[in-house]
Amino acid sequence: MSTLPFPASVYAARLDRAASLAADSGLDGIVVGPGPDLQYLVGVEGDTIERLTALVLGPGLAPTIVVPRMELAKVRTTAVGALGLAVSDWVDGDNPYDLVAAALGTVSRVGVSDALPALHVIPLADRIDVRVELATPVLREGRMIKDAEEIAELRLAGEAIDAVHRRVPEWLRAGRTEREVAADIAEAIVAEGHRTVEFVIVGSGPNGADPHHEVSDRVIGDRELVVVDIGGAVPSGYNSDSTRTYVVGAPDADAADRIAVLVRAQQAAVDAVRPGATAEQIDAAARSVLAEAGLGEAFLHRTGHGIGVSVHEEPYIAPGNDLVLREGMAFSIEPGIYFPGEWGARIEDIVVVTADGCERLNIAPHGLTAV
Amino acid sequence: MSTLPFPASVYAARLDRAASLAADSGLDGIVVGPGPDLQYLVGVEGDTIERLTALVLGPGLAPTIVVPRMELAKVRTTAVGALGLAVSDWVDGDNPYDLVAAALGTVSRVGVSDALPALHVIPLADRIDVRVELATPVLREGRMIKDAEEIAELRLAGEAIDAVHRRVPEWLRAGRTEREVAADIAEAIVAEGHRTVEFVIVGSGPNGADPHHEVSDRVIGDRELVVVDIGGAVPSGYNSDSTRTYVVGAPDADAADRIAVLVRAQQAAVDAVRPGATAEQIDAAARSVLAEAGLGEAFLHRTGHGIGVSVHEEPYIAPGNDLVLREGMAFSIEPGIYFPGEWGARIEDIVVVTADGCERLNIAPHGLTAV
Repeated sequence: MSTLPFPASVYAARLDRAASLAADSGLDGIVVGPGPDLQYLVGVEGDTIERLTALVLGPGLAPTIVVPRMELAKVRTTAVGALGLAVSDWVDGDNPYDLVAAALGTVSRVGVSDALPALHVIPLADRIDVRVELATPVLREGRMIKDAEEIAELRLAGEAIDAVHRRVPEWLRAGRTEREVAADIAEAIVAEGHRTVEFVIVGSGPNGADPHHEVSDRVIGDRELVVVDIGGAVPSGYNSDSTRTYVVGAPDADAADRIAVLVRAQQAAVDAVRPGATAEQIDAAARSVLAEAGLGEAFLHRTGHGIGVSVHEEPYIAPGNDLVLREGMAFSIEPGIYFPGEWGARIEDIVVVTADGCERLNIAPHGLTAV
Repeated sequence: MSTLPFPASVYAARLDRAASLAADSGLDGIVVGPGPDLQYLVGVEGDTIERLTALVLGPGLAPTIVVPRMELAKVRTTAVGALGLAVSDWVDGDNPYDLVAAALGTVSRVGVSDALPALHVIPLADRIDVRVELATPVLREGRMIKDAEEIAELRLAGEAIDAVHRRVPEWLRAGRTEREVAADIAEAIVAEGHRTVEFVIVGSGPNGADPHHEVSDRVIGDRELVVVDIGGAVPSGYNSDSTRTYVVGAPDADAADRIAVLVRAQQAAVDAVRPGATAEQIDAAARSVLAEAGLGEAFLHRTGHGIGVSVHEEPYIAPGNDLVLREGMAFSIEPGIYFPGEWGARIEDIVVVTADGCERLNIAPHGLTAV
């Protein structure tokens, strides 16, 4: 946490770009709380807590970090220190919103980061007496387009999680519980090069039919399908996220047929990715393959989400999102089919948009893997 | 996660009380996002993500949960299912704020939970066209006063973390890194009865002088002071949090003297706790002992924080907080002294306000423990 993943100049450029995008959007200032936006802009990690930490930036403003004094030493190990940003520290009893207001100066339009909690949004809005808006359009612009260094980190993360998927057959077998298998997987996520385990979903049999099932003490049975959706952050903070569907022994023929359709649907979406296509077109590419096979109703969620320093971010690959894809965008393509009470399946890769298509960052075998 | 820690009737009473407190505060409705408030009210755990989950309640409103369809199965395993609360589910492409607005009906004052992120606060406020306010005063009221069952869980958590502190001398010695010691402690936190490790701070030598240091690869040296601040959640979701300061071998005499003052300061604050005292009086009790010994400047933070389903919550034991303590409030008392570049020390117990004083939930030896 105390080593910046990129040179200070990278963060300086990100800050300049954010200020310039804010100007384009007519925002006089932006207040960024802890979360992926702050991690992206200055390398400060950690979640929002009750004491306000916030970066204030905007057109013509010197970027200033408002920070509890007890967090100051840690914050100085990030780009805040490396770039010598202005620091406005406070102790319990001070009003940190006064410090944010002072850093903003006279403003009429102020944006806040997505993750800033109501606990801070509302007193800040009251203090500056401006109706605050989401800075999402400005902040997502930088994070959404990955540069070569970021893509290298995502590639590293993809290789690491692929290595874990290749080892899943070592641990997955009838008679073990989902939780036991998940513990082995979690250990391997770290062993294969992640610094954190972000999530481990092992959904066996009917549990696979719940897209957000995590793990349980359910004992995995013979011939059951098992959805394994896993990810972590590599040391730079960039995330992996990949899903494969396994079967213990020989699969039911009908299930195998449906999963073959799912693999085709996932491939169709990957094939559709190119600069100029829209997010909803990618979603539709997967959805239409499933619908043509009568599986449209079994696909309960969007096709994918962006990924970077957070696991879920822009762009969302979903119906109704007419966002135009550009080179450097990175996102998941993860159609799934779910039959409540019976079974489910999902196949997920991360892809990065290239000049003429996409690079797939997960290449572990995509079809139903028998263990 | 799928077993409610308390009977459904407990959650029904909490919901009724929240609606009644909302009425007292003149709020027409409250929107509670994922976080400790939602966990407290209906047993739904997990953090806020980009898809809105929210409980809508208020005077005369049937409590309604707005939830992504893919989360519905999990949400039904909580009090939402046990109490048969109204469910308003949505899929990608729907506008969940419309569902919240429908559940609220016609309203002029709406509160939101602390943890609801700007991502949802701002579009919700735009949709209902009401300036939203913090529901903190309403929501903290229920969470702040623990009932007998909650106190039993906090007591269990206190015993579990005390058991870990008693074992710290097994692992802490010169030549090991903070991270190695922390790994042993984390394992013991689970082994002694927690379901999760929430935090492990091992601050040796100068790292102890940073109140928010976590762990590092620093090798612990002979005669060094080490701050160990640890906690986790027991199966019901209630948290432990306790700090002790250790010394490897014989302490420096001056440091030992200052830490003896710190122990007295912590005891003075514990002794001051009773119904009718204010939070700031408890803080002042610790602070004045340190100030009289010339250590006032070394105490950088507030004296304590409430604890329950979250590690940090109301009441905050801090200068300027004139909140009057009541029976059933549970909070930490954790003065510390910090000498940048040299060393630090902190002593922390959780206490619960009783009819005529307080019950201390951590009784592992308080003084400097030589290992």
